[in-house]
Parts: sequence; structure tokens; C-alpha cells
Amino acid sequence: MGKSTQDHPLNVTVWGENLHEFHDAEHMAALYPQGMHATIAEGIGSLLGDQVNVRTATLDQPEHGLTDEVLDSTGVLTWWGHMGHDRVDDAVVRKVHDRVLAGMGLLVLHSAHFSKIFKSLMGTTCSLEWRDSNDTELVWTVKPDHPIADGVPHPIRIEGQEMYGELFDIPEPDELVFISSFTGGEVFRSGCTWRRGKGKVFYFSPGDQGYPVYHHPDVQRVIANGVMWAAPSPRATFERPDVVSQPAPRFTAEDFARVAPGMQAGQEGHR
Amino acid sequence: MGKSTQDHPLNVTVWGENLHEFHDAEHMAALYPQGMHATIAEGIGSLLGDQVNVRTATLDQPEHGLTDEVLDSTGVLTWWGHMGHDRVDDAVVRKVHDRVLAGMGLLVLHSAHFSKIFKSLMGTTCSLEWRDSNDTELVWTVKPDHPIADGVPHPIRIEGQEMYGELFDIPEPDELVFISSFTGGEVFRSGCTWRRGKGKVFYFSPGDQGYPVYHHPDVQRVIANGVMWAAPSPRATFERPDVVSQPAPRFTAEDFARVAPGMQAGQEGHR
Amino acid sequence: MGKSTQDHPLNVTVWGENLHEFHDAEHMAALYPQGMHATIAEGIGSLLGDQVNVRTATLDQPEHGLTDEVLDSTGVLTWWGHMGHDRVDDAVVRKVHDRVLAGMGLLVLHSAHFSKIFKSLMGTTCSLEWRDSNDTELVWTVKPDHPIADGVPHPIRIEGQEMYGELFDIPEPDELVFISSFTGGEVFRSGCTWRRGKGKVFYFSPGDQGYPVYHHPDVQRVIANGVMWAAPSPRATFERPDVVSQPAPRFTAEDFARVAPGMQAGQEGHR
Amino acid sequence: MGKSTQDHPLNVTVWGENLHEFHDAEHMAALYPQGMHATIAEGIGSLLGDQVNVRTATLDQPEHGLTDEVLDSTGVLTWWGHMGHDRVDDAVVRKVHDRVLAGMGLLVLHSAHFSKIFKSLMGTTCSLEWRDSNDTELVWTVKPDHPIADGVPHPIRIEGQEMYGELFDIPEPDELVFISSFTGGEVFRSGCTWRRGKGKVFYFSPGDQGYPVYHHPDVQRVIANGVMWAAPSPRATFERPDVVSQPAPRFTAEDFARVAPGMQAGQEGHR
Repeated sequence: MGKSTQDHPLNVTVWGENLHEFHDAEHMAALYPQGMHATIAEGIGSLLGDQVNVRTATLDQPEHGLTDEVLDSTGVLTWWGHMGHDRVDDAVVRKVHDRVLAGMGLLVLHSAHFSKIFKSLMGTTCSLEWRDSNDTELVWTVKPDHPIADGVPHPIRIEGQEMYGELFDIPEPDELVFISSFTGGEVFRSGCTWRRGKGKVFYFSPGDQGYPVYHHPDVQRVIANGVMWAAPSPRATFERPDVVSQPAPRFTAEDFARVAPGMQAGQEGHR
Repeated sequence: MGKSTQDHPLNVTVWGENLHEFHDAEHMAALYPQGMHATIAEGIGSLLGDQVNVRTATLDQPEHGLTDEVLDSTGVLTWWGHMGHDRVDDAVVRKVHDRVLAGMGLLVLHSAHFSKIFKSLMGTTCSLEWRDSNDTELVWTVKPDHPIADGVPHPIRIEGQEMYGELFDIPEPDELVFISSFTGGEVFRSGCTWRRGKGKVFYFSPGDQGYPVYHHPDVQRVIANGVMWAAPSPRATFERPDVVSQPAPRFTAEDFARVAPGMQAGQEGHR
Repeated sequence: MGKSTQDHPLNVTVWGENLHEFHDAEHMAALYPQGMHATIAEGIGSLLGDQVNVRTATLDQPEHGLTDEVLDSTGVLTWWGHMGHDRVDDAVVRKVHDRVLAGMGLLVLHSAHFSKIFKSLMGTTCSLEWRDSNDTELVWTVKPDHPIADGVPHPIRIEGQEMYGELFDIPEPDELVFISSFTGGEVFRSGCTWRRGKGKVFYFSPGDQGYPVYHHPDVQRVIANGVMWAAPSPRATFERPDVVSQPAPRFTAEDFARVAPGMQAGQEGHR
Repeated sequence: MGKSTQDHPLNVTVWGENLHEFHDAEHMAALYPQGMHATIAEGIGSLLGDQVNVRTATLDQPEHGLTDEVLDSTGVLTWWGHMGHDRVDDAVVRKVHDRVLAGMGLLVLHSAHFSKIFKSLMGTTCSLEWRDSNDTELVWTVKPDHPIADGVPHPIRIEGQEMYGELFDIPEPDELVFISSFTGGEVFRSGCTWRRGKGKVFYFSPGDQGYPVYHHPDVQRVIANGVMWAAPSPRATFERPDVVSQPAPRFTAEDFARVAPGMQAGQEGHR
């Protein structure tokens, strides 16, 4: 669909809380030296090359790094949060929500299932089961040849992951792309897409601050695929859907006159 | 599904703004002498008899009539609003939203597409086209034998209606039951269902304070069908989906031991 | 939805191949002395009591037991087949397919994913992964409070089952009710619903001739729930959707005249 | 998604019955001098340029022009038929069906709703209402910014069309892109997509041998968009989904051992 070319790269903003990086500094420094958001951004950049311009934004920045200028020039936003959902300013959430409805793509990662932005787009609790037990996760593709699943094995195998299990209280996805399993027997709808307004939303669960999941090549592949999948239409105008008041009728007197003269209202057709 | 019986009628609460009844008193007195909510409630009661207990609630009441006691004993809530969406208290909206996720059914009627409760459940703008021109609306069933469409003609014909047209900015319905047309050529997805958590939501567009639509027998029939369709499960516990932390694994050592001894991990099966 | 009452019980026909009962007579005699179809029928009858009349039909009977008389008086048909899919007469398949489109409900069980009737309703290969290794299956509910999941634990636990795994090549279900897991890490969309014409189709995977799964109380519960869920509308006419040729227009000259005189086609409304 | 580039154009085969061109020769010669299929092919070629190689195939050719060589080198097939559905050889239909499940895209146009290939992919009657009365059709986009709707007005206006109306007996589309209206008040789900196996199917109703619809620039635009939307994944292997027998388990003893030692099966977690 030619969403981006060398001449018009897709602008990607990778948002991260950047809190665990300080609260669990030692552990995180080993896994994610520049922060999880930096690792995610590098993955996207290295896989997509000059199809994208990637930048990061974090909670601690003014407006959490999501100023009008940044949002208005972002084609796809990725969101990772965990311990700081409450600290995200409601006004910024509202801006991001509006920008999604206007056409910006959104990737929601792991514990961001509980982010304000995801819950406001979904309308459900987004709750789930979880267990922190260094589990193995298998990610199975249930929609073959879906662009988000391009280039990854069936299943993807991730050694070292937090278990997420059903019931995952989300609206029925428009598309279910992945289902994951864990050694305890839990299952989880780990790759789901929805449309909201003109924007495309992709939730992808693998990824936890306690494990090196965002270095995993298949996870990086899925995120890169997801970014391209969620990219706005090349001709996107970024106008949110809005009320249209009192438009004139589109059918005209000439339209009605053209109907074959033999057919009069009330005259029953034959079955 | 036995949602209600003579012994356990379904409790239905019909919520109305009751503002036009005062602002356009003369016009409304002719159409809806006791208020639109009363007409809607009567329609439900007369069609469903002792399968239901019906009461009304209005904006001007304490907590808009939606106290904990009322909500906790409501199986299905219907909502009509238009000029007073802003006046609905956010705390009440949150209670209603939570109760839907816990299993209460919700019917959203006509201009309530812009109600706070509908927009928070949907996550979209819910905007549309409209024209106030005493139009004729035809309501076509696109899901044959759906319980909501039981007992109404194909199409339902409503003389005297406000035009609602696409684009209707909603998430893709779980089920599209009706599509409407108007003389100007406009179309509208006029009967849509979604699940949110354990609750069922039905949006039905025909109905405007300026026309006697809620007296129309087919419109009353659809609303009654919708109420029964949206009723909670007979065994509903009305607990919202919630986080489950650190559950024990469900697979046991015995489970793994039972797998046929000849099959070892790594041994490739034949295609 | 009051689909059946003491006065009008739902007619259920349980179809079985009845081949393994002879080919694996010794093993089957222990598990299913009267045949798998008899066990399934007994489960339905004992859970639903006088809401249903249950009968069985088998491959070896004239027209496989699915004469016009039987089909025309069947509200819900259940189908289990495995080694004899090829032996089902195409003319009978066509009759069953037409009856589903006309409103008869259909439950498709386990290896019947490869039945002619299921493949013709789905349009896909319906292929999957499988392993016969006396596995443990966990069946998780992903649509809370869905009538098909009524009264069963989360998850259902079945000790002794054949593994079915993704990719399950089916159209995206209208509703995904259950996802199963197995000790090898495999997952499977084990409870799926679709509408085809006026009929409702429910595929449920647990159940294999090699294991006593159809005696499992939770499996019996799901099958009984599925039968009631799939029951035709009380007012079903059992006419298949058909072409309507040359109907008269529904909009009349009076409709067009009623549109507010101030609004002329071509006159642009304001946004 | 970069489905095609100058180096690897998408191969498109435009299939037409080529019967009306002879049966209604005079009328068709005015509208479609080289046949409808030629007009459709020219539209695709002129809008997509070197992104595509376009060829045609017709009923009268050996294997209806759909030899193994042609099908194996076709990325997207378009299908228009009307009076000759019965004449299409079942063996060819089966090959086309298999190729769709393997990843070939398929556009189904107008009266091809009754083609063998569409009915076998859908599993429903695909029946509808129709009236041949030189009507005006308005095609409304209900999924904003969908690639298939790129570059066309809201609504598309077609003067001179056959009316198609609901009930259109199809499975619920994966995506509903367009809804059409006609002066008689009829509505129709005129742009629908489904996935079948690895293939993408797009049904688009405007277009009739009696009207110059396939010369309409917006109709040509939608068809071109649909072709690009339906294109197979760049890495498509064109292997149909198939059974996988007795794969080894993917979870290993090491996986189970890694689970945190404090967590034993049966030990209940806290909520």
C-alpha cells in the first residue's frame, strides 16, 4: 500500500514511562541501558531503515513529550507504561485519543493494557490474569499471511516472560492475529487490532521490564510490522470525524424521474 | 436462554433527560404528554407484560435517578438524551459504565449517540450527519431472524423522522442488525450491537423529540426485543472483570507425565 | 429469548458416523457402549429435560437418517464424524446446508471440522494441527457471561484428550467463546460461532472417540448450552433467503414532498 | 506494505463471461466495445501503471483461461459473471478456490455474487433484491481512510445502475467498507471484505452489463484500490493451510523447570 517511501518516511514516536529505569536501576541497566523506549526505538529503526524517522518521548518531559508539534507530526505512536499510568496527564491523553481518531496509528505494548489511552479507546476494564514467574511464552499466528505476522516463526518462542492470561477484558478485536500460551496452561489474545475513527490500534502483549523481551528479534519484527501496518493513509488529512449538519439531499428530482416509467410505487414486483 | 420468567421479571430502567418536555413544552405535550421516557416505558411494559418491571429515571432527580440502589437492581437500562449530555454527572456516568461492564444491558436511543455513557463505552467521536426535515425513514433488517428484528416488517417504515447519515463514527459493531435509508439518499447503520465486558449494548437510532416515533408499533417492538436481548445472564454475578494476580499454574506434573512416552520435545512430527 | 417451553420442546437430532463403534469395537464399547451419538444425546436430554426432544441419526441409515421428514422437524442438528466424511452423500449435505441457511441450528463437534457440511458452510480448508497423546486440555472462556459458557469453570479441565492446535483454517468467527491449551504449548480456538443465512453454527472441539470426553460434565454442559443458543427463532418460517425480483420502490412521491420545503437539492448545508 | 514495486509488478487477471457481449451485442458494443473485461482491465492498468501486469481471461477459453500456469502466476483475480454461472466448470472453480486459500486475492464484481466461486467461499445463498430501472446509486464510505475507499467522494454518485437491495445473504463481512442507497429507498452492503485462508476477498456491487458503470472514474478507482488491497503478502509461499500431524510439543522440561520455584501447582494466588 506504499505508505512510506524514501522520500516521505513515516514519523514514529516511541513513548515510554522511563520510571522503572530509575526505580529498578540496577536490573534495568543490564537489560535496557538507555531505557526500554530506546531499545524499542532502535529495533524499529534498524528493521525499517529509511522508511521511518524514529524518536522517543517520556513521561518526565513537558507534556510527556507529546506536544502539539510532536503529535501533529507523528504517524505512529507506540506506548509502554506500567507503574505510572496515573501520572499521565488527562489533557495529554485526550490529545492522543483525538489524534488516533484523526488517523494516527497506535501500538500498545504489554502493561500498557492498563494505560489511560488504551482504556479510553477500548471502553472496557482491560484487566487480565498475570504471574511473574520467568515463564516461556509461545506466540501463535492465527491469521496466516497477516502483515503483522510477516517473517516470524509459528510459534514465536520467548524464554523469560511474565504470564498474561484470559480473561482479557477487551472488546472483540477487529482482527485477532496472535494467541499466546504459557507453561501453566494459560492462554492470551496477545496480538489484537482495532480501528478507532480513522486510526488503527495494535495491542501486542509480549514485553516486560523484567526480561530482555524487546531485544528478541521476533518481537522486534512484530513491532516493526505493526508500525507499518498502523501507518496512516498516504492521503490522510488528520481531521477527526465530525458532525455534518443539514446537508442537502443527494437524490434529485431528475434521479427520481429517471426510474423506468413502468414502475410505480405500490406496484408489487414478482418473486 | 430463559432470561426472565413470571417468577423473576427483568428490571428495566428507562432514563430520559426530561428537558425538551419543558423547553418545547407545547410541542412535546402533544407528542409525549408524560414525557418521552414515559412513552418508551409504556411501550416496553405493554409488549413484555409480566416479563418486566419498568420504571423511569430522569436527569433532574438526585444522581439523575441512578442511585446505587436503582442501578444494582437494574437488568437493562435505556438511555435517551439530547440537549443535556453535558449535565450528566461524570460520577454517575462512571457508575453506569461499571455496571454495564459487570453485566447490565444498555439500550442507547437516537441522539444518545452523543451521550457521555455511549462515547465512553465506544471510544470514538460517535459523530454523524443529520438533517431535520420531516423525512421518511426505512429501516432494513440485514441479519435475518435476529431476535432484535423479530416481528417487524422488512423494511420498517417511519413517516416523520430526523435524518441520520453516515459517516457514523463508531467502532465496527459486533453485529449490524439494521441499516436505514432516507429520501435524500442517506444511509445509516441504525441498529448495532456490541459487547462491553459482560454487558450487552444495543444502539437504535429512530426516535426524535420532534416526532411521535416512540409511539410507532414497530419501533416499540424493536425496543422491547432489544431489552430482552440485552438482559443479563440468569446467573449473572454482576462482578466486573478484574485482575487475577499470581494464580497457580493449572498444568501439573501429572499432566506432563501423561503425554505419550514416545513423543519427546524436539522430535519432529511428519506432515 | 424463550426459544422453547414445555409446550413446544426443541427438536434435536444428534448425528453420528457410528463407524468407530465397529472398527474399534472393543475400545469404544468401554467408552461409549451405545455409540458416541447415544452418549451425546443422553447428555443433552438429561441437562435440558422437557425443553427438548432428542433423537439420533447415523451414517448407515437411509439418507443417513436425515430424511426430509427428519430435517424439516429438526430445530438443532449436532454432527460428529471422523473416518467417514467421504461417505456422506453430497445430496444429503446439500439438504442439511439448505436447512441451516433456512434457520436450523448446527453444532459441529471435534473431528467434524473436516465434515463436508462444515467445510461447505465455512469455505476454508478447516485444517489444523493434531497430536494423539493423551493430553490435558484446558478450555478457557474468553467471552464472559456468554450463554454457551454458562455454568462451566474457567478453565474447563479435561484429562485425556487429543491435541488440536493452530493454525485452524476457519473464517474469523463471529464470536470466539473458548480458547484451549495443551501441555505441548499448543493453542486452539475451541469454541466458535458463526451465522450462515438464518442459521446459527457452533463449533466445539473437545471430544474424541479415543477418550471419554462426552461423559465429562462440563463438556455436556457446553453442548447443552450450545443447543439452546443455536435454536431457531420461535417464529422461524424456515424459508431460505431468496432472490426478490423487481420489487416496487418503497419511497413514494408523498415521501419526497414531505421534506421541508426550504431544503433544495444542491443547497449546501453548513458544517 | 510494499506489495508491489517497479521490479515486481502485481499480476492481475480479469475474468469475464464474455456472453452478454454476444447476446446483447448491439447494446454492449456501444458500452463495452472490447467487452466488459477489457474495460475493467484498462481501468486497472491505467490507474496502477507499472505496479501491475494485467491480462484477461474468458469463459470460452480452454479451462476458461484459468490454466495452472495462469493461476499460479496470478496475484489478484477479478471475477464478473451473470448469465453463465452454470457453465463454469466445477474443476476450475475448485482450482480458483484453492488458489484463494493459498493467498491469491479475489475481487467479486456485481452479479458475480451468484458465481460458483463466491458462493463456495461464502457458504451462503448470496441472494438479494434487484430492480432494473436505470436508478441512481449512492455509494457511502463507512470505514474512513480505508485503502479501498482512497480517493473517492462521500458518496460516490452513479447515474444509471441496477438496484441491489438487502437482504444480501452473506456471512458478516470482516470489514464493511461501503453501503449503497437507491431512489426506491433500498440499501445494500456494496463493499465488503473477507479473509478466506491466506487470501483476501473483496465484493463490490456497482457494475452491470446494461450501464457504463465500469467507465465511471470512481468505480475504476475503487477497483484499483481493491486490487492493491487484495494483493498477496510479498513473501507469500502460496501453500494452502494444511494438516500438521503429530508435531512434537514445543514446551520442554527446561521450560517447566524455569518457572519460579516458589510457585507450585495448586497453590492459590491472591486476588
